[in-house]
Amino acid sequence: MNQPGAGTPWERLEHETVFRCPYYTLERDLYRLPSGEARNYHYVHTGGSATVIPERADGRLVLVRQYRYLMRLPSLEFPRGGMQPGDDALVVARKELEEEAGLVAGELQEIGRFAPYNGVSDETSYVFLARRLTETASRPEATEELSVEVHAVASLQALARSGELRDGMTLAALYLYLLRR
Amino acid sequence: MNQPGAGTPWERLEHETVFRCPYYTLERDLYRLPSGEARNYHYVHTGGSATVIPERADGRLVLVRQYRYLMRLPSLEFPRGGMQPGDDALVVARKELEEEAGLVAGELQEIGRFAPYNGVSDETSYVFLARRLTETASRPEATEELSVEVHAVASLQALARSGELRDGMTLAALYLYLLRR
Repeated sequence: MNQPGAGTPWERLEHETVFRCPYYTLERDLYRLPSGEARNYHYVHTGGSATVIPERADGRLVLVRQYRYLMRLPSLEFPRGGMQPGDDALVVARKELEEEAGLVAGELQEIGRFAPYNGVSDETSYVFLARRLTETASRPEATEELSVEVHAVASLQALARSGELRDGMTLAALYLYLLRR
Repeated sequence: MNQPGAGTPWERLEHETVFRCPYYTLERDLYRLPSGEARNYHYVHTGGSATVIPERADGRLVLVRQYRYLMRLPSLEFPRGGMQPGDDALVVARKELEEEAGLVAGELQEIGRFAPYNGVSDETSYVFLARRLTETASRPEATEELSVEVHAVASLQALARSGELRDGMTLAALYLYLLRR
């Protein structure tokens, strides 16, 4: 069933930014397929994102519940923040951990990365494990109405199984965390 | 640390489509926050997607490796296809399984769903477990140069741990599959 070509890069011929908003841009590339055919690719461009898994001394994890307009639901998620091009993922992780969860970490290390939506967005999300946590004042941004929740892994697994935890980036990060244990 | 409001819906005041391509549209909503402030939200709109986990009789899973232009890498993923608004996820799952993996399933059932990129896209991906598989002729689409690979779960876990498997939707779907076993 194997076919050749799954690893052949596509050549970019043209590039333009067709739309801008504060969180991302929409780009158009004209590219050439290995077959020689030229096509347009329209995609979301971001500087990446940082996802933080805060692990307390008792082993439980800290998440935030926030209303997600596009899901029309409150969504349980690990703290996460978008990066602007050139941002350092570690710096953004530290900032989001403080702003969303009200926590400062004595230890913050990358445990993996993934592409959340690779057909449409060039985003890579960098996953950090945060340990040795201390509380600070929580300062959510104006559009983010957050509640902070602490869950045992078994509780998160039950919520994922039932469909209540349905944020894909949180599911992917949780899986990377569990693989590492 | 808890704050009120994480579940408060935002009211939509205006809506327009600002960009169209064959795979998605870019929409603008003017919405009102619970605070009363009105803001614009620009987001990607799709009809959803169907992710298929083909499980062979020997327990190994079937994936496809395809070049992802936005990652500039060949990416190992479960077969997946976009839905147009109104599409039935089960029908799309069956079609993608055949077109990408060259397989027909005697049993195809939904095991979960998730939102892959909920800050920017309204997409829900429906995850199907495909069993009682038989081979048919693989018919990849023109832009999809695929190779089909068969992996034991332990192999996928090793690839996820090493960072070679870094498609977020595949990681989320694999985790939902493992929870169900």
